[in-house]
Amino acid sequence: MLLQSLRKRVCAANKSLATHGLVKFTWGNVSAIDRERDLIVIKPSGVSYDELTPENMVITDSNGMVVEGELNPSSDLNTHVQLYKYFKDIGGVVHTHSTEAVGWAQAGRDIPFYGTTHADYFRGSIPSARSLSISEVNGEYETQTGKVIVETFEHLDIDPNAVPGVTVRSHGPFTWGKTPEEAVYHSVVLEEVAKMARLTEQNNPRIVCADKFLLDKHYLRKHGANAYYGQNN
Amino acid sequence: MLLQSLRKRVCAANKSLATHGLVKFTWGNVSAIDRERDLIVIKPSGVSYDELTPENMVITDSNGMVVEGELNPSSDLNTHVQLYKYFKDIGGVVHTHSTEAVGWAQAGRDIPFYGTTHADYFRGSIPSARSLSISEVNGEYETQTGKVIVETFEHLDIDPNAVPGVTVRSHGPFTWGKTPEEAVYHSVVLEEVAKMARLTEQNNPRIVCADKFLLDKHYLRKHGANAYYGQNN
Amino acid sequence: MLLQSLRKRVCAANKSLATHGLVKFTWGNVSAIDRERDLIVIKPSGVSYDELTPENMVITDSNGMVVEGELNPSSDLNTHVQLYKYFKDIGGVVHTHSTEAVGWAQAGRDIPFYGTTHADYFRGSIPSARSLSISEVNGEYETQTGKVIVETFEHLDIDPNAVPGVTVRSHGPFTWGKTPEEAVYHSVVLEEVAKMARLTEQNNPRIVCADKFLLDKHYLRKHGANAYYGQNN
Amino acid sequence: MLLQSLRKRVCAANKSLATHGLVKFTWGNVSAIDRERDLIVIKPSGVSYDELTPENMVITDSNGMVVEGELNPSSDLNTHVQLYKYFKDIGGVVHTHSTEAVGWAQAGRDIPFYGTTHADYFRGSIPSARSLSISEVNGEYETQTGKVIVETFEHLDIDPNAVPGVTVRSHGPFTWGKTPEEAVYHSVVLEEVAKMARLTEQNNPRIVCADKFLLDKHYLRKHGANAYYGQNN
Repeated sequence: MLLQSLRKRVCAANKSLATHGLVKFTWGNVSAIDRERDLIVIKPSGVSYDELTPENMVITDSNGMVVEGELNPSSDLNTHVQLYKYFKDIGGVVHTHSTEAVGWAQAGRDIPFYGTTHADYFRGSIPSARSLSISEVNGEYETQTGKVIVETFEHLDIDPNAVPGVTVRSHGPFTWGKTPEEAVYHSVVLEEVAKMARLTEQNNPRIVCADKFLLDKHYLRKHGANAYYGQNN
Repeated sequence: MLLQSLRKRVCAANKSLATHGLVKFTWGNVSAIDRERDLIVIKPSGVSYDELTPENMVITDSNGMVVEGELNPSSDLNTHVQLYKYFKDIGGVVHTHSTEAVGWAQAGRDIPFYGTTHADYFRGSIPSARSLSISEVNGEYETQTGKVIVETFEHLDIDPNAVPGVTVRSHGPFTWGKTPEEAVYHSVVLEEVAKMARLTEQNNPRIVCADKFLLDKHYLRKHGANAYYGQNN
Repeated sequence: MLLQSLRKRVCAANKSLATHGLVKFTWGNVSAIDRERDLIVIKPSGVSYDELTPENMVITDSNGMVVEGELNPSSDLNTHVQLYKYFKDIGGVVHTHSTEAVGWAQAGRDIPFYGTTHADYFRGSIPSARSLSISEVNGEYETQTGKVIVETFEHLDIDPNAVPGVTVRSHGPFTWGKTPEEAVYHSVVLEEVAKMARLTEQNNPRIVCADKFLLDKHYLRKHGANAYYGQNN
Repeated sequence: MLLQSLRKRVCAANKSLATHGLVKFTWGNVSAIDRERDLIVIKPSGVSYDELTPENMVITDSNGMVVEGELNPSSDLNTHVQLYKYFKDIGGVVHTHSTEAVGWAQAGRDIPFYGTTHADYFRGSIPSARSLSISEVNGEYETQTGKVIVETFEHLDIDPNAVPGVTVRSHGPFTWGKTPEEAVYHSVVLEEVAKMARLTEQNNPRIVCADKFLLDKHYLRKHGANAYYGQNN
């Protein structure tokens, strides 16, 4: 059986979506990519988190063709495929329908940078990707969803490593990271800052984004060569 | 004892309302119908979910007359009866006072279709049934509640199989499904999309419904001949 | 030791405030009255729910003078005393700082009757008692708080048995019932309908109260000679 | 090993942040000061609450220089240092990113005094400290954060013993107390009154602060020579 260690991690990462309160029923999926072998490990479609095992994860190639596994892969697989194709540094992708993030996805607005909780993980507002056209929806829908995400980051010149998440219009959030675990972490952060941003606007409807230098300070306190948060530096 | 297997399922479905956080005290009920024998199994009135057993479920005929059981059936029985009478394909009905759904029922507004979480299970906005008149309330209240729900779907030409739920004005949600388990599932979805819709409007008061083609795409990804979500196709 | 059975019930009712999520730390208290012996059993002040035992409940006479008990009674005792004095049919009183109810108490607005969840237990909007004057606050504050509640019901001619709760301006909710258990039940209902009312207004800022005949129907479905909800009739 | 008893208490206080639902991941820290020995005990940076032990707490002097401990101290240490330096009566400090408090910090508004839950622990509105300038952020950021907090209390002539908390603009809450346990208690209160204030304004957008005499009454019912809440007087 291929990728035994990565299967375990992807299985555990999927289960952690439930633990973190990000999903109901089967409404979320985590994948990871092995860049050397060009293989993706992803949750099977419609299977509850309780029933997930490392063995029932699905392995595909980097185009989304199933290589190993008896179950259908997540129906969102082809969105993950696009993200791995264009965001070269990422190793894990998460999609959920977490409530507060969907509240922004459906509103069609970027999640504004209002403070340091946000800045610690997202170096800028979290973009809202545009609606898909009728031909995109009726064509290769999941692939087009991935392409619209990539387009958003390219058109706005956002570094996907510095802003590791997006909300897709009328749909929900996608996040990513160097590992599947980090991608899940970013989903938790996105959900929390989505709620904080909503409360902030409720408490002060005239609020504007926080200062750019505060954003940079907090982001760089945790990331990059001069980071000094935690124990690894 | 009649319908031993269905008693078990209805009992478990009622208990699951509490597990899903949809009810306080005794504020919700699940029933199922056996279409061949024309018998309904329903929760007894005012009994807490802890105390429910397959044996204390109440069996009625399809007009709501008790056939077996020592306890009074749910006071909402006659609403269930109407739904089974007019919605011929359904096998289970749920009524709760879940918080977010009541927030729309009391507001007297349809829950607008704002995104794919909604579209995966409800092919269109979830209608708000009109207020009952004084004579309807003071007459056969629970039967009239069912009639008003049916009227809503008929007048608006909504297929109850494609939109398996409603909120009754100044009251709360009813959902249904092919089975009692599916009816409960739809109650969970309705509560969640009710919350998402509230947050969406809070984040963007000028938002309008999502595209019809996205609604169809997501609904048909999960339902019908060309569904490709999950493992059963 | 006096009132052993009632001590147990009041102790359990106090602990249930925590189970129902109505209190943090020591922020709530339950009492009961034995009308025959004219004795009140109440939580000791500032003691956490974990540490409550039937033995450390405090017994006072109907004027609030301690009869038995080594600990100080709840600082809100004299409010309870007033309620027992003027609301002759009640047997238990609860005070909490539950979040949604405080959101209305601090807003200084009645909780409007918007639907049947409310009507099942409160036959009308839940009144907001007026602010206390400086002399009332600086005098016998807790006694005056009780007097203002009673004044509210008398001036508005509300039957405290039909509307078993109130919010005190800039403070929080008080509820009561025939028993301490019922008083707790009413606190849970008040908190829930407070939240539902907030969501209702958020979803429809122009909403008005529901129909009076619906209020009566639902209230009388559960209370009085013609009640038909539950198993006791 | 220095300060064995205080290490235990600080460790337990940090873990209690998670129990109280105030933190996700590693997003909060508690410290305490031993005023006689002039030593601070603080959480290590980026370590999860599960992994905290009395032994891995970090000891610094009152200028924030590490005296004992192999791990890096919390990155917010220098903010704590400033608070201990200027608020002479305090023995513990807490910083979190709790959701509702951040909703006010990011809104840049004081949390208004709307009722008695607030007044029981904070004798006045909870101030919002100003944004840091670019030179403050890019200089000794954490030290400057502490200085801005102190400046806020000095300029507004607020007694930090009577108002034991603040929100820092675009960041989050800091609270303090005579002990680390009391500082945590104040963080729980601040989070709760932050939510209550939000709901209050939602229910009544025209609400103003409650009466000053009510504030004083409730604060002094619990604090000072004439306090009569609880068992210690």
